[in-house]
Amino acid sequence: MIGIIATWVMAYEGVNKAYSMLKENKKSDLSMIEAIKTVEDCEYFKSVGYGGLPNRDGIVELDAGFMDGTSFDFGSVGGLRDIANPIEVAYALSKEEANNFLVGQGAHEYAKTKGFIVKDMLTERASILYQNRLIEDQSELNPYIGHDTVGMVSLDNDGDMVAGTSTSGLFMKHAGRVGDSPIVGAGLYADSAIGGAASTGMGEDMIKGCVSYHVVSLMGQGYSPQKACQTVVNELDRQLKQKKGKARDISIVAMNNKGQFGVASNLNRFSFVVATDTIKPSVYVTYNMDGSTYYQLATQEFLDDYYNSRMK
Amino acid sequence: MIGIIATWVMAYEGVNKAYSMLKENKKSDLSMIEAIKTVEDCEYFKSVGYGGLPNRDGIVELDAGFMDGTSFDFGSVGGLRDIANPIEVAYALSKEEANNFLVGQGAHEYAKTKGFIVKDMLTERASILYQNRLIEDQSELNPYIGHDTVGMVSLDNDGDMVAGTSTSGLFMKHAGRVGDSPIVGAGLYADSAIGGAASTGMGEDMIKGCVSYHVVSLMGQGYSPQKACQTVVNELDRQLKQKKGKARDISIVAMNNKGQFGVASNLNRFSFVVATDTIKPSVYVTYNMDGSTYYQLATQEFLDDYYNSRMK
Repeated sequence: MIGIIATWVMAYEGVNKAYSMLKENKKSDLSMIEAIKTVEDCEYFKSVGYGGLPNRDGIVELDAGFMDGTSFDFGSVGGLRDIANPIEVAYALSKEEANNFLVGQGAHEYAKTKGFIVKDMLTERASILYQNRLIEDQSELNPYIGHDTVGMVSLDNDGDMVAGTSTSGLFMKHAGRVGDSPIVGAGLYADSAIGGAASTGMGEDMIKGCVSYHVVSLMGQGYSPQKACQTVVNELDRQLKQKKGKARDISIVAMNNKGQFGVASNLNRFSFVVATDTIKPSVYVTYNMDGSTYYQLATQEFLDDYYNSRMK
Repeated sequence: MIGIIATWVMAYEGVNKAYSMLKENKKSDLSMIEAIKTVEDCEYFKSVGYGGLPNRDGIVELDAGFMDGTSFDFGSVGGLRDIANPIEVAYALSKEEANNFLVGQGAHEYAKTKGFIVKDMLTERASILYQNRLIEDQSELNPYIGHDTVGMVSLDNDGDMVAGTSTSGLFMKHAGRVGDSPIVGAGLYADSAIGGAASTGMGEDMIKGCVSYHVVSLMGQGYSPQKACQTVVNELDRQLKQKKGKARDISIVAMNNKGQFGVASNLNRFSFVVATDTIKPSVYVTYNMDGSTYYQLATQEFLDDYYNSRMK
């Protein structure tokens, strides 16, 4: 049995590649890394890898995480500069005995030593958006439309599951800011005996709820992936509203080791991509009704809107 | 009702101060910060703050985390250099709307801008230990005897709970390595509606188990703090042995919002300090029997041994 689920429309091309690989009995780790690299390499996506929007100093700093649900090995990078594919560095770090989470200059040095491609990740477009932003109001630092962290969970024919994430984080973040994406438990979690989860939204809030671990933990108690995601999103949303008067963006995707998937979001029109033994790679869009998340196949109009807004 | 629990003998002096403050109806956050600062300022403890052992480049890099269990606000620093009290920076970050986790140079800049004391954290003793280590075998990077992260949980008379951690991390770690201490969920977690937990040991393994969140989650399901800690330590220890052939050091302390506490460790002779309405600040030492952690008051001989080994 195979399966892969990913946050946001932008993952579609990568999921397609991973789906082909999984069908050929390739492993979940290599397939998912390939899928995430595809998103990182696309300069039109403003929130992942090349073309990602910079921090308030005008510098692109990247976060990524990888977790192997069979061995529990993980690797993470935070605030990584000038390396083409952060997910590859996270994956390499997951093979180390210790020092699995590296940040800043230390992460860059590791990546360079290991021979990963050094690359100026700031595109001309991102630079123009940054210059424009400098003369706008910057009082609120929230995930903007188009702030789409890529998060994935994948299952291969051997039953091995992995989870992974990659992002350039919040536009205009403080230098050195790390979000939930590289944090095992918050941005991603995988346990091949149960399933995996990955999140996107306001990292600081996802960290407070340990959302990916919580989802996997509920699936371990017998919840379906859908019920697990819904429970965690609703609970954190409720708690944040009660404590802080508002809840910022929270979206989670999950898959269990039977290839069943789930998704929940406190946004309307959160998009995700999924492929399983019985579903060819497909883009779905969520909508919320009575405190529950539902989804339907994305229309061509939705896809056109998405690509237009991300690529403009 | 008041209470405070902390990892390792070295926390004794700080816990004493916090205990006095809590008895005077001071808040749990300020009392705990004061306690952790006391540990950070003591140059004889080789694994926290001033006097902490450096990374493999000979540079002291510090991690700290703070979580407020009532608001869920948190602040964390990773790989912070040349700042006297990392826990104060983490606490200041917990008051920010976003950018709550800062690492490396960005964390240092934030601390400097906020007026925190800039200080060369490498002592002569730590420098000598580093030079000696360079000519020894460095093949294994494990928590050495004396690698004691300080982690605390505190409860005040208003029922507000906090958790906090501070450490210089693994001796000879890679530059930029971040352990579990600043990671909400792994190194610390607090929810005033339930309780809090903090951990010490091999950070990379604690991250895999989201141990502090897991403990709080079990207490929320009705487990006593003792049973929650024991369950999480035993489960992670078992899983790591099964997956990797060995489990490295895992120790967790916890307290619920009734002031009841718990502790579990896969080590023998893990020490902790606790104070409640009915227990004056006391040092206990654990021992393991039949898969369970027990503890008894530390003997004078144990305390002498501890201080001698840490201060030599």
